[in-house]
Amino acid sequence: MNYCSNCGSADLMYKIPEDDHFPRFVCPDCDTIHYTNPNMVVGCLIDKDGKIMLARRGIEPRLGFWNLPCGFLENEETVEQGAKREVYEETGATVELGNLHTVYNLPHANQVYLIFKADMVGDKYELTTESTEIRFFAPEEIPWDEIAFSSNAFAIKKYIEHGKADKITHVGSYFKDKIR
Amino acid sequence: MNYCSNCGSADLMYKIPEDDHFPRFVCPDCDTIHYTNPNMVVGCLIDKDGKIMLARRGIEPRLGFWNLPCGFLENEETVEQGAKREVYEETGATVELGNLHTVYNLPHANQVYLIFKADMVGDKYELTTESTEIRFFAPEEIPWDEIAFSSNAFAIKKYIEHGKADKITHVGSYFKDKIR
Repeated sequence: MNYCSNCGSADLMYKIPEDDHFPRFVCPDCDTIHYTNPNMVVGCLIDKDGKIMLARRGIEPRLGFWNLPCGFLENEETVEQGAKREVYEETGATVELGNLHTVYNLPHANQVYLIFKADMVGDKYELTTESTEIRFFAPEEIPWDEIAFSSNAFAIKKYIEHGKADKITHVGSYFKDKIR
Repeated sequence: MNYCSNCGSADLMYKIPEDDHFPRFVCPDCDTIHYTNPNMVVGCLIDKDGKIMLARRGIEPRLGFWNLPCGFLENEETVEQGAKREVYEETGATVELGNLHTVYNLPHANQVYLIFKADMVGDKYELTTESTEIRFFAPEEIPWDEIAFSSNAFAIKKYIEHGKADKITHVGSYFKDKIR
C-alpha cells in the first residue's frame, strides 16, 4: 500500500493505532486506518455415486492441477451461497449442500477454506473457462500427486476416512515458512 | 475507494475485470484490481461449570451490550489462534478450544462468525479496555435483550439446545435489507 485509498495521500504510516494490537497503514492526513484481513475460500466436495468431483484448473495458480471446485467468498453472500456459486462458475453444475465438511487454515496466505459436502442436482456439468477437465474419482483413483492445494487434499482425505454420513466439521491447517 | 492504493491515481473505474464475474475497482494507470472480500470474526463460547462467559462491550459498536468474546481474524493467524487471542484481549482469560461450534453469516455486513467451544485454563480473567464487565450466565440467566449481536444469540441458543457434548458445527445466517 503506497497511497491512501481515501484521500490519495502518499504519507501513509505503518503503525499500531491507538487501542489496537496490530500495525496498520494509517493516513496522517485523513486519519483513515486501512485494515487488511484474511479471506475465505468456499467450495464443495461433491459425491456422485461414491465418486468425488475434481476439476482441472484452467487458470493460475496451479494451472493444470486437480481441484475441488472452490473460490473466494464475495461480499454480500453467505458461505453457502458462495460455495454453490463457485461450483456453478467452475463446472456448470448445480448442487445441494450437505454439512460444512472442512475448515482449513493457510495462515501464510491469509486464507481460510470452508468446504461443504454436496450432491449434484441433476447430472449437468460442463467445462468452463476456469476448468479444462472435470472427472469423478473413486477414492482409490484420487491423483494425490496432482492435487492443486493442501486444503483440497485435507478435505478429500477426511472424506475418505470418515465417509458421507459423517456430520463433523474437520478443522486443519497448513503451516509453512512465510514467503515474505 | 477514491484513489488507487498502489499508484495514487484518481481515475479508478468500477467495472467487471476480464474473466471475472463481479465489479471491482480497477486502476487504468497501473492495472491493479482492488478486491474486497468478507471478513471473519472469531471467538469462543466458554463454559465454566455449566455457565457461559459473556463480556459487556466497552467499545462501539453495541457499547454496553453483552457479547461472546470475539473479534476480527488477523493476517497470518489461524482461526483457532485468533479465537484464543480475542478471548485473551477482551477478558484476560486463557482457554483451551473444543470443536468449532457455529459458523454464522452476516452478508449485509460482509462478515462470517466462527465460534469455538472452549474451556478456561485456570480461573484467571480480568476487565480490559474492551470489556467493562465479565460474568458467567446459567442458561436461564442469559440476558437475551442485551445480547450485542445475532451471531452470539445464535451460538448461545445452539449451545443450550444441543449441550456441551455435541460435536456438530451449526451454520446460520442473519439477513436484512442492505444498509446501503
